[in-house]
Amino acid sequence: MVNNDQMDKLFDEARQIALKAYAPYSKFRVGAALLCEDGTVVTGVNVENRSFGMTICAERNAICAAAAKGFRRFLAIAISTPDSIEPVGPCGACRQVMGEFMSGDIPVRFSGNGPKQINTTVGELLPFDSLHELRK
Amino acid sequence: MVNNDQMDKLFDEARQIALKAYAPYSKFRVGAALLCEDGTVVTGVNVENRSFGMTICAERNAICAAAAKGFRRFLAIAISTPDSIEPVGPCGACRQVMGEFMSGDIPVRFSGNGPKQINTTVGELLPFDSLHELRK
Amino acid sequence: MVNNDQMDKLFDEARQIALKAYAPYSKFRVGAALLCEDGTVVTGVNVENRSFGMTICAERNAICAAAAKGFRRFLAIAISTPDSIEPVGPCGACRQVMGEFMSGDIPVRFSGNGPKQINTTVGELLPFDSLHELRK
Amino acid sequence: MVNNDQMDKLFDEARQIALKAYAPYSKFRVGAALLCEDGTVVTGVNVENRSFGMTICAERNAICAAAAKGFRRFLAIAISTPDSIEPVGPCGACRQVMGEFMSGDIPVRFSGNGPKQINTTVGELLPFDSLHELRK
Repeated sequence: MVNNDQMDKLFDEARQIALKAYAPYSKFRVGAALLCEDGTVVTGVNVENRSFGMTICAERNAICAAAAKGFRRFLAIAISTPDSIEPVGPCGACRQVMGEFMSGDIPVRFSGNGPKQINTTVGELLPFDSLHELRK
Repeated sequence: MVNNDQMDKLFDEARQIALKAYAPYSKFRVGAALLCEDGTVVTGVNVENRSFGMTICAERNAICAAAAKGFRRFLAIAISTPDSIEPVGPCGACRQVMGEFMSGDIPVRFSGNGPKQINTTVGELLPFDSLHELRK
Repeated sequence: MVNNDQMDKLFDEARQIALKAYAPYSKFRVGAALLCEDGTVVTGVNVENRSFGMTICAERNAICAAAAKGFRRFLAIAISTPDSIEPVGPCGACRQVMGEFMSGDIPVRFSGNGPKQINTTVGELLPFDSLHELRK
Repeated sequence: MVNNDQMDKLFDEARQIALKAYAPYSKFRVGAALLCEDGTVVTGVNVENRSFGMTICAERNAICAAAAKGFRRFLAIAISTPDSIEPVGPCGACRQVMGEFMSGDIPVRFSGNGPKQINTTVGELLPFDSLHELRK
């Protein structure tokens, strides 16, 4: 179980990495920090493209970078959107990629640069996910 | 409001179009039928690619085809997965594209080739969606 | 073989459909017109998303819409970018989807709103494509 | 300028990382190794998804992981596909993402597990790329 202090620390890593986002088109930077099962933290940012559809989000960047290091199971993910005051939830595509590697109870935190913070889970973000059904 | 008869009819169109899916890699065919605000139905299938990441799902195919006809608002969507017995929910990417054009109360039905049928909404499929918040 | 008059007509359809693009984020509209093997023309536009990565380009929209109609072979594609003066070539993702359904000799025309026009082929746009090799 | 020895070494890293690919659906593993401008090598693998369209290729994985480390300019990329004998070129989507960060003269090497090896450039893989035109 990941406690609140660990989530705070993870979110802090997300907030720091967000500054490295490549977001020249949207000017909307996103950072993600992923806690791997051995305690390693892997981070990601959004990487945009002039063909908008080729943009990769921060969450998917982090998950894929971790997969390349051989990780397949994760304990938590935190997402920072420093260019919005309110929290902005992960897009559906990222929820789908989370669902490939994370069970429904994995905690997800996201926040903007304001005080509001959302604490939810992969299962709440991706209800009616068939793989979760299969895993039960 | 879309009634149950209309949803039955819409699902029937999804089931029929699924047979035209281009799914040589997964062998998992999907069909989608989208009810536009003037009553027009636009259908879509999954179109796979040997570079798996370039695959387009049936739901996104239908929504984008409808957008090209000038539609921007939709009343309902139905999804058929004839190669599974159980219903298989739309992937996160499709939920995201639904969220761009459909408000949270729009009905979504999906079913496999068995008797079970899921009747839900765009809002239930994509909780914590920032645009929905903004629209309230 | 598709002659120049047919390409002119096809491009004209691309230019007209581009006006229906859903491009609120980039303000860069694209239209595509695809000539199917029986003479049917299927059109597409770019359909953007607030999660930029979920954007579908005009070319892929047209090809997937045609696939949903049961078409698998195409004779030509034309692409119009009315918000640029110079021609803007199809992005790599669209070249990849073209390559799934079109052999290397299929003609591609693209143009902006200026006089310059590029006439090329799928094979020139996607060199070193393994499927083309296999098809030889 | 990257010499042949450096390309050999880079390809060797691509070949090794390919073994960490997450490719349960295609069984086709890909590894990529990217040489950053300060000499750092960042690697990536393909990361598939049960919704095929959410798959990320090895090349994009490596480029986005490097972007998250703050890199924006790269000197070379090598790609290994150990499950094919013949070389398999990068898909169009990856060519597009290469084109965002790499100029046309950047060397690209790809090879399967056989003796054949392709040595090309980003410009040859993505001709008629508008950004390259602008950069000239």
